[in-house]
Amino acid sequence: MDLSRYLADRTKLVDKALDRFLPEESVKPRTIHKAMRYSIFAGGKRLRPVLTMAAAEACGGKIAASLPAACAVECIHTYSLIHDDLPCMDDDDLRRGRPTSHKVFGDGIAVLAGDALLTVAFGILAKSTPARRYPIAAQISDLAVAAGSRRLVGGQVADLEGEGRKLGGEDLKYIHRCKTAALLTASIRLGAMSANATPAQLRALTTFGRSVGLAFQIIDDILDVTQPTEKLGKSAGKDITARKATYPKIFGLEKSRAEARRLTRSAHSALKPFHAASGILRALADYLLAREY
Amino acid sequence: MDLSRYLADRTKLVDKALDRFLPEESVKPRTIHKAMRYSIFAGGKRLRPVLTMAAAEACGGKIAASLPAACAVECIHTYSLIHDDLPCMDDDDLRRGRPTSHKVFGDGIAVLAGDALLTVAFGILAKSTPARRYPIAAQISDLAVAAGSRRLVGGQVADLEGEGRKLGGEDLKYIHRCKTAALLTASIRLGAMSANATPAQLRALTTFGRSVGLAFQIIDDILDVTQPTEKLGKSAGKDITARKATYPKIFGLEKSRAEARRLTRSAHSALKPFHAASGILRALADYLLAREY
Repeated sequence: MDLSRYLADRTKLVDKALDRFLPEESVKPRTIHKAMRYSIFAGGKRLRPVLTMAAAEACGGKIAASLPAACAVECIHTYSLIHDDLPCMDDDDLRRGRPTSHKVFGDGIAVLAGDALLTVAFGILAKSTPARRYPIAAQISDLAVAAGSRRLVGGQVADLEGEGRKLGGEDLKYIHRCKTAALLTASIRLGAMSANATPAQLRALTTFGRSVGLAFQIIDDILDVTQPTEKLGKSAGKDITARKATYPKIFGLEKSRAEARRLTRSAHSALKPFHAASGILRALADYLLAREY
Repeated sequence: MDLSRYLADRTKLVDKALDRFLPEESVKPRTIHKAMRYSIFAGGKRLRPVLTMAAAEACGGKIAASLPAACAVECIHTYSLIHDDLPCMDDDDLRRGRPTSHKVFGDGIAVLAGDALLTVAFGILAKSTPARRYPIAAQISDLAVAAGSRRLVGGQVADLEGEGRKLGGEDLKYIHRCKTAALLTASIRLGAMSANATPAQLRALTTFGRSVGLAFQIIDDILDVTQPTEKLGKSAGKDITARKATYPKIFGLEKSRAEARRLTRSAHSALKPFHAASGILRALADYLLAREY
């Protein structure tokens, strides 16, 4: 299978759906819709929506039915990046190779663009068609928990509070689970729900999501150390500058790589009940790991 | 009927429910839950949740069934105040007579506390029990529209962009409809839906909400001019300082008062189909108008 072609195809599907779900730039007030679209169409990898669609397919569902969930998780992800980049948070000027939202639109509009994307995520889901086993409210509840004060937002709080402090391995894992793994897991779970997954399938994919999510963030930590800014599309070495705890800093590069590989293997095992149907999910887990090199 | 006693009783109900729906301060990470609760329990008037409950009662529903919606709209309202008060927005130090969130917790945590309250609003609704005519997704969709880029957020954008510019009456009405009337109307609609309102009841209450919502904001504009800071609990004369357009500035005090009275009358007419069942809603509309004096 040609994974890069697969990714390009899926990215196109998500982009088209996002274009459909978000108000046009010409809708009043224009500034907010321009700002929402600026960040949504900034050339992100669409990793979360790709996982949503792949999870839906692994459960025998239709991709079209998973698109609202796929777009909702991408809106949540993008909102969190806009707010994380604000001067009062991580204060970053560059994201996905372009100036960050607040650099282009000012801090006030950037806050509001994030707010609007967070809100529209729930609006998109609320308008979607439920699968037999899962009312839409179940998907929304899952997403609200993953994006909420104990997960995505909580992780950012712990991250902010941890700057300049000496964090242990457990603290760091907590931050990574909250900031990255929770939304990644929700992306996969929502895809599964949209495909009317059996409870066993949903459990297996939840385990898969948690492993892949943590592996993904460990590799992000590694890339921050080993890659130049041009390749990252965001400021490299930023975690070190901000005196943030990272996997390589606490465990060393080799141990971090080994942990990412171990998590990827455990993600693979979680997929056993799916047999051949999960080929794409396996390939995606390997692809995320391979970014290390 | 003793309205102030009624309001005190209802406020107590909402406060208890909010306490139940929001994570305890001891839940990790503590800072975010402290910040969420700081703003939620800052002594707000609970006007929106009171309207939610009153709308539910007018439709023959149980108050208990309307509490998730009541709390969700209050979370949305509080999030919008936290973000509006940020230095990059209206830059206000005082809210409900206490220092604003960012003054106490810093800008970063204030942004995140707003994000978390916005998110939990949808989480609370998603866990509630649907009425026969309205799946939970219908309530969530309504709330997402009211809080979204074309309403609540859009109004704040137009407000920000209007500062120091010469706005006309239509521009101002647009801002007021988006910033205030939309969420107020949604508060009422969600209450009606939780009570399994008939389509005709829902339509009548929507009209009622729009009139009351606009009247409410006109009176807020008037109070900003006529009341001292101590009485407002927020900085008085702020709209003038920020060179914001207000009703009294564009139409004069007397015409503004007349318009608020006219809207209150039209709110009353909208309630005709309810007969005696809407006594509380009538009294609330009058109460909101009476703040003028």
